[in-house]
Amino acid sequence: MGMSDHTKDALPSWNNGKAKQSILDFVKRVTTPGGEDFVPAAERIATFDNDGTLWAEQPNYFQFLFALDRVTALAAQHPEWKHKEPFASMLKGDLEGALASGEHALIGVVTETHSGVTTEEFEKIVKDWFTTARHPKFERPYTDFAYQPMRELLAHLRDNGFKTFIVSGSGVEFMRVFAEEVYGIPPHQVIGSTGKQKFELRTGKPVLVKLPEVEFLDDKEGKPISIQKFIGRRPIAAFGNSDGDLQMMQWTAAGSGARFCLYIHHTDAEREWAYDRQATHGRLDKGLDEAQDRGWTVVDMKRDWKIIFP
Amino acid sequence: MGMSDHTKDALPSWNNGKAKQSILDFVKRVTTPGGEDFVPAAERIATFDNDGTLWAEQPNYFQFLFALDRVTALAAQHPEWKHKEPFASMLKGDLEGALASGEHALIGVVTETHSGVTTEEFEKIVKDWFTTARHPKFERPYTDFAYQPMRELLAHLRDNGFKTFIVSGSGVEFMRVFAEEVYGIPPHQVIGSTGKQKFELRTGKPVLVKLPEVEFLDDKEGKPISIQKFIGRRPIAAFGNSDGDLQMMQWTAAGSGARFCLYIHHTDAEREWAYDRQATHGRLDKGLDEAQDRGWTVVDMKRDWKIIFP
Repeated sequence: MGMSDHTKDALPSWNNGKAKQSILDFVKRVTTPGGEDFVPAAERIATFDNDGTLWAEQPNYFQFLFALDRVTALAAQHPEWKHKEPFASMLKGDLEGALASGEHALIGVVTETHSGVTTEEFEKIVKDWFTTARHPKFERPYTDFAYQPMRELLAHLRDNGFKTFIVSGSGVEFMRVFAEEVYGIPPHQVIGSTGKQKFELRTGKPVLVKLPEVEFLDDKEGKPISIQKFIGRRPIAAFGNSDGDLQMMQWTAAGSGARFCLYIHHTDAEREWAYDRQATHGRLDKGLDEAQDRGWTVVDMKRDWKIIFP
Repeated sequence: MGMSDHTKDALPSWNNGKAKQSILDFVKRVTTPGGEDFVPAAERIATFDNDGTLWAEQPNYFQFLFALDRVTALAAQHPEWKHKEPFASMLKGDLEGALASGEHALIGVVTETHSGVTTEEFEKIVKDWFTTARHPKFERPYTDFAYQPMRELLAHLRDNGFKTFIVSGSGVEFMRVFAEEVYGIPPHQVIGSTGKQKFELRTGKPVLVKLPEVEFLDDKEGKPISIQKFIGRRPIAAFGNSDGDLQMMQWTAAGSGARFCLYIHHTDAEREWAYDRQATHGRLDKGLDEAQDRGWTVVDMKRDWKIIFP
């Protein structure tokens, strides 16, 4: 409970203002014993989207950039990819062309490049990728793109008895490789999209093989469903940045007692990126309207964050 | 860390003997700093089957007895059940006749009686049932049938930095109603079979509706798959009582470093029930052979447990 020292600023990377104050106020209300909004520690569940909320998602979702690299690595084993979109565009380095194939085709690429290996093999592939891969624009490891203000927020919530969960559209086995180190979130508190798996005994040794089939997409309506399935308790606080997080917010807000919903608005084209209603991915449109209508906190990255990356 | 007082017996309901000693030894080995089998707290994951392992499963799984009562409660809305097995037998109180329909039909009964309601409505139905329903043989509430020695074991593991998870074939939303109170296991550490759900806005209020369709059966090969999906880390200790737990044990045992697998063997026809290789549910056959071959701990309930129910 290191942060309970009131002389210390729990959120030093946040500029003083409405957004920061709304967080501090909410945490104080639900943790003040005897207060009318007090929530027992076991019920202090906070859920966070990952891409665009806890770390950057440009020029595309990092998992998609990983899948791109996997396409290159696996191309020799898949000669048919040369003539099959979106693989063909990817192999030519034409990201725009690949994206033109649409979301369904891109999910297919992720599914195909994330299967045919055991869960242990996949973990090692992702771990190695994070060690060597560099962000195309900033040429730094992808894990450097976690938002420092959000890391402080995660720590502040945990210091106040909250359990912090990731609830993301990304693949759960991709995120678990970095979530504990980068966010302090253990594997069993990372929830994401899943692919089907098969249990096999290989010469007596059990393995789990990743199959090329989506099991569950943890996005939009999928988020409250996943929260119910994995956590089994309604969050009292939810954090997101896109319309894909709206149903999670609605589900969170609809519980009784004190509730907190916060949208990150990407407004800083210089230090990060600026995008919202027109974005092809990470679009924030309906969510922004609903946040304004319902008085949810909207973080203006440019105005509210002193620093963005550590 | 209340149990770290070495003068106190952490497992008072266990008779002294090989089984009890194997537990105490394992916990000591993995928690002794600097010891060759030391495991960091974050990796101290222990998974428990529920029916027959943490509580009784006779005359049938308690969730199935709940489903039976639901069939009676819902019969007026389903006139067709009078002529459809296994519903017809159930409505006549003929449990044997219903069971003769086979596992697939019984899963269908559970699915049908657990759907068509929101998750909140279902939680209330289950909660009410536990308050009023009584075990057919002993006429006590079902939650009285949790095994006292296993409750002590759960507490001993947690006192030593373990995270305890349920990994059961039962429905996750059925178990979460009692698991925290009875076992001290919070909802997000309860893993079970799941049904499909649908997110809906009903006059603006979001609800999750339980659909009459199985999503995932958390039994046999399903258990390691669920462990990977929900926990994301291989357990170092696993506890079960039937062949349905064998793949979880194999998956647990195959990790590197110290591992612990324990089977409960139902041997006490007087205080509980005696069944194993020939049982129609909760069968322990292949698992018993493998436990003996591999030197896993086998608890003889009659010999090893001083008391069974609190």
